[in-house]
Amino acid sequence: MTGSFFRPGAAPFTERTPRVVAARKLTRRAEREKTGRFLAEGANAVEAALAHGTVHALFATQRAAGAHPELLTTAAEAGVPVSPITDRAADGLSETVTPQGIVAVCAVVDRPLETVLADARLVVVLVDVAEPGNAGTVIRVADAAGADAVVLAGDTVDPHNGKSVRAAAGSTFHIPLARARDVDGVLVALRTAGLRTLAASGHASTSLETLRFETPVAWLFGNEAHGLPAELLTAADETVRIPLYGKAESLNLATAAAVCVYTTAMATSH
Amino acid sequence: MTGSFFRPGAAPFTERTPRVVAARKLTRRAEREKTGRFLAEGANAVEAALAHGTVHALFATQRAAGAHPELLTTAAEAGVPVSPITDRAADGLSETVTPQGIVAVCAVVDRPLETVLADARLVVVLVDVAEPGNAGTVIRVADAAGADAVVLAGDTVDPHNGKSVRAAAGSTFHIPLARARDVDGVLVALRTAGLRTLAASGHASTSLETLRFETPVAWLFGNEAHGLPAELLTAADETVRIPLYGKAESLNLATAAAVCVYTTAMATSH
Repeated sequence: MTGSFFRPGAAPFTERTPRVVAARKLTRRAEREKTGRFLAEGANAVEAALAHGTVHALFATQRAAGAHPELLTTAAEAGVPVSPITDRAADGLSETVTPQGIVAVCAVVDRPLETVLADARLVVVLVDVAEPGNAGTVIRVADAAGADAVVLAGDTVDPHNGKSVRAAAGSTFHIPLARARDVDGVLVALRTAGLRTLAASGHASTSLETLRFETPVAWLFGNEAHGLPAELLTAADETVRIPLYGKAESLNLATAAAVCVYTTAMATSH
Repeated sequence: MTGSFFRPGAAPFTERTPRVVAARKLTRRAEREKTGRFLAEGANAVEAALAHGTVHALFATQRAAGAHPELLTTAAEAGVPVSPITDRAADGLSETVTPQGIVAVCAVVDRPLETVLADARLVVVLVDVAEPGNAGTVIRVADAAGADAVVLAGDTVDPHNGKSVRAAAGSTFHIPLARARDVDGVLVALRTAGLRTLAASGHASTSLETLRFETPVAWLFGNEAHGLPAELLTAADETVRIPLYGKAESLNLATAAAVCVYTTAMATSH
């Protein structure tokens, strides 16, 4: 496979090749919104993207092609154009510190809010989450916990951001995602879908220890620095805090979400 | 406070001032091991360090001094020398992307293994963990969950690394830490201290859902890419996996540790 992929005389695409230049623009949110495409980098994400069936093109360095021949085969069998690229071109397509050399151009995966909430029993909602790595990590946790959807609400980072896709380790393609600017509208949609809303807050009166677990339920998590907006804490059916048994004043967003969502999943999976 | 701190005519220390140059060397592990000192950056960590009583010196930019006057007061009352520094000097003392402008030079906090395990009922052991941010996040989770100690075993990153201290958000000073190169020796020490050992592994037969929670217990977590060494999986009293209800193949280290340690803490806290 590698032999035919990098055949003699066929020079790999460089960072100046028009198709690489066009792909590189997808590291910008505006370009993703204009084109409806985004980049999925790394073997995990590319494998999940190919299984999802929404890959327009695949780029790989010689090293990555050698390390993941099965991905090139899968892509070729699916009729996805596969192109060799230089290491430098791969660096330009990467938004992470350690480029993996394999990048897919994919159709964006988010769906309408009402679609992802239909018949959902466990939903995770991120409100104004700023760090793409956190959004991706929570998407991965939600997938692992068997949640039905993740909603990225308000000013939350784009889940198609390269760092988010990398942190999600393939889950970007596994679990239905919806984006919604209007947070009040999200709350209405959650209620319409019959979901009880639990707002995570360090100042809540109800502890996760004593919470009665019933589905359908939606967990709401806020911004890394400021938490959830006050009006959401008021509007939610219940505010819930993680018990702190030691001297730490809080958990970070991703670990807090992991504890809340997994506790719910384990309590309701039987 | 700010007025007297940055008084006219007293120029702040620059990145070339000998005391700043000496402090900057503490961003290197070798220098930390030689001097027994490390840097705690950011208001959370500095506050916890001052409460811990092991601060040798405090540096702050004008902006940070204005934002946290209470920390300068606490330091002054404790007889800790406080020095103004330039923004550029603060950048040089920071190992994070967003320097906070306030940095304490502290005595290293780790203690002998046997000391931290004495009478412990919940212990977290990291084996060969490579990312300082992960080590710090797990230290924060262990503190929040009321664990009695964190052991950094084998090739695990130094918890005094700036990124680890930042991720721990003060917990570096809250919870007893021990370092031990010899992983077999750690296992012996855990047994001698009467702790049941639970090894987290994606391939374990026991699910966290069905685990019987009894303390005293020690949770073992392995390297981000490779997990725990095979011999540790064999030697542990039990290997435990987090149930995966969706399509994700795994959780990342920090979220996996959060789920395991918090599930144990919530089940045994009554």
